Amino acid sequence: MQEPHVVILGGGFAGLGAMEKLKDAPVKITLIDQNNYHTFQPLLYQLATNELDANQVGFPIREMMHRQDNALFHQAKVMSVDLDNKVVHLDRMEPIPYDYLVVSMGAVVNFFGTKGAQEYAFPLYTMRDALLLKTHINRLLEAVDKNPALIDEGALNFCIVGGGPTGVETAGALSELLHAVAFKDYPNLPINEKAQIILFEAGPKLLKPFKSKLQKYAKKALEKLDVTVRLEEGVSEIDPTHITLSSGELVKTHTLVWAAGIQAHPLANSLGVEQVRGGRIPVEPDLSLNSRSEVFVVGDIALITDTKTNELLPQLGSVAQQAGRHVGENIERLVNGKQTEPFEYTDKGTMAAIGRGAAIVQMPGNGTMTGHAAWLAWLGVHLALLAGGEEKSSTIVDWGWNILTKKRGKRITLTDEDLEAVIATSEKRESEQENE
Amino acid sequence: MQEPHVVILGGGFAGLGAMEKLKDAPVKITLIDQNNYHTFQPLLYQLATNELDANQVGFPIREMMHRQDNALFHQAKVMSVDLDNKVVHLDRMEPIPYDYLVVSMGAVVNFFGTKGAQEYAFPLYTMRDALLLKTHINRLLEAVDKNPALIDEGALNFCIVGGGPTGVETAGALSELLHAVAFKDYPNLPINEKAQIILFEAGPKLLKPFKSKLQKYAKKALEKLDVTVRLEEGVSEIDPTHITLSSGELVKTHTLVWAAGIQAHPLANSLGVEQVRGGRIPVEPDLSLNSRSEVFVVGDIALITDTKTNELLPQLGSVAQQAGRHVGENIERLVNGKQTEPFEYTDKGTMAAIGRGAAIVQMPGNGTMTGHAAWLAWLGVHLALLAGGEEKSSTIVDWGWNILTKKRGKRITLTDEDLEAVIATSEKRESEQENE
Repeated sequence: MQEPHVVILGGGFAGLGAMEKLKDAPVKITLIDQNNYHTFQPLLYQLATNELDANQVGFPIREMMHRQDNALFHQAKVMSVDLDNKVVHLDRMEPIPYDYLVVSMGAVVNFFGTKGAQEYAFPLYTMRDALLLKTHINRLLEAVDKNPALIDEGALNFCIVGGGPTGVETAGALSELLHAVAFKDYPNLPINEKAQIILFEAGPKLLKPFKSKLQKYAKKALEKLDVTVRLEEGVSEIDPTHITLSSGELVKTHTLVWAAGIQAHPLANSLGVEQVRGGRIPVEPDLSLNSRSEVFVVGDIALITDTKTNELLPQLGSVAQQAGRHVGENIERLVNGKQTEPFEYTDKGTMAAIGRGAAIVQMPGNGTMTGHAAWLAWLGVHLALLAGGEEKSSTIVDWGWNILTKKRGKRITLTDEDLEAVIATSEKRESEQENE
Repeated sequence: MQEPHVVILGGGFAGLGAMEKLKDAPVKITLIDQNNYHTFQPLLYQLATNELDANQVGFPIREMMHRQDNALFHQAKVMSVDLDNKVVHLDRMEPIPYDYLVVSMGAVVNFFGTKGAQEYAFPLYTMRDALLLKTHINRLLEAVDKNPALIDEGALNFCIVGGGPTGVETAGALSELLHAVAFKDYPNLPINEKAQIILFEAGPKLLKPFKSKLQKYAKKALEKLDVTVRLEEGVSEIDPTHITLSSGELVKTHTLVWAAGIQAHPLANSLGVEQVRGGRIPVEPDLSLNSRSEVFVVGDIALITDTKTNELLPQLGSVAQQAGRHVGENIERLVNGKQTEPFEYTDKGTMAAIGRGAAIVQMPGNGTMTGHAAWLAWLGVHLALLAGGEEKSSTIVDWGWNILTKKRGKRITLTDEDLEAVIATSEKRESEQENE
């Protein structure tokens, strides 16, 4: 008898978690991703701010596969899934039939229809996003170097919308990029005097799911880093050289980082299944689809209700990783003729870093941590998330080293001239600036 | 009295050499480069073959400037030089007047009018070149993975034209990429059985300036790595899926690496000065322009005659570095009211690596080295060339480590989808393949 074929769509935390748990199972696995690398999303903001390099945030999937004999990888785009016939259709490749399917395609940015966002905002969810933002910032600083009059036009104002962990972490990292590195790189520019970082949050508090004490600490820590925090203020329109706030106020800026929301990957819309809250797919307690016991949905594309608390689980790497592993175990159970088991999430705490040396940690139960101790915990948890693959060990060393020594050797703008996507964006902006 | 203004065009080995020698001189320096990084050209072939990452072959120029208080950097394109009025014209920036000028803009590829080369050949002289080749190879392997029928169409045939050090080193590195890494990355493909690497050299010998003994050793070492060496055979036309040899023979291949020649940077053509041999600018013994004692020309754009042997000096990093430093010293002499001195090149040997663990070294005088000892010498010389900047130390460690452990964590194809330059090239190729 042939071994059952497990097809996994998406090589994020969820998909890799499922694959790794099936390492010794009597199955044949095919993993599909449109990129040939796994993205370590929690550190994308560090790529965008020159702290880490792309190969420290992305890991070659094929190298991870060396350890797993029962799995093959194909770099391909998923065009559609035929749930009735159990077949995945791919771009420029033969369709692949499956016995078990894991849908772990993640999410995409959600601009909520904000005018100009598609064209001019910088989201921060994919490697591409981070590289575009990094390149934009480096090019902008070079443009100011050549033409300091741009400072009065807002070129050194950096705005972030969304007061969740991504927004808070990006604001802190931008401050360190400008005040710890750029002012040395551009000794002729008044960066420390003129650069402004403004974080906008539509709600009354930063970091909504965190305890009030931690929210206050985070706000103070950001302000210490010269970040202006503006609560109860959203962004209603984005132009190349300014943004319009919900209050109607105009703020001059060439850089609006969008950290205000994501929605399910569009593949979710094509499956013909129920979708709720940003297009996410609700799943059964065992993480399968209600109507299809051979199809599992995990990661940011799924809507998982915690079996203990009856609350929705957040879209976090740790949830995706645990749920992915659980799906791997459930598929192995099915293959061995057993029943699946419901997923139980083990909360190991949520956290956010605010620059170097400061962080907040909300521990399971009632505990909290702030300051240096929290930052070390943050470092430890991320190092642990990174660990597990030989190929990641040099990243851990590099990253820890960079962070501890404040070294940034990564601000090479390779994309300059060569990467037309980036340039097209920039030139469009520049020509629009000139026409204004 | 105001300090004299030294403008240096180009941040390669020559330009940086001149700048560093002027560290303590009573001058103001402006360094101009179109990229914000210095490229370590001798290792570009390792970037192209996934051995090193971009940030290990490029170093941020602004970080190097932290050490030098009398110098500023601008990332700008040089449009023209007005030698009469002593002004450099730049793209999107105010013109810059100079008292002393160092022209160290390097070279560009020379296709010698070969049909199809501009569109389909992969040169290997700039960071951009190396990234395009790397991306092409990684995408090609992914395409074969999805459609193994491409193997019969030559997708696993890799051709290199030019039997100099770049061609030899690239052929060796490609062999190791395919036979030490790719066969593990693509366990479903017959890479070890089907991949072919062919090195074409129009002349009767590889590595022309080397001694016959070393030439023979290099050829044998390449053949041991499964590289086919074809001497007295050139490439007369390049198409997306095949090349035409000078003998008329067609060879199926999707990858032709052009290592067959360079010419002076086109700025040389606009200066209105004498040009010889690939557009290079002949210089006086003190490396100045014949007609302009305040203008110095160094590096691959210059044609320097050795004062001792009366022979032309080769276009090598070590020549550029030494000549650049000499120019720095000569400018300091002029500033201090002294006479310039003629340049004397100190030959420290020329070398080429042929894969991991094999190399050839031609020492000054009559000495030669081959094999492991030569390879260690090659490693040592390159580590020494790399050394000198704190920011380079982690590269040395990474690079040595990679080389010694055969690790390749760098084959992330970030450019996928995002870098339209690359994609445009690939898609053009693909659509042409489909139309054939």
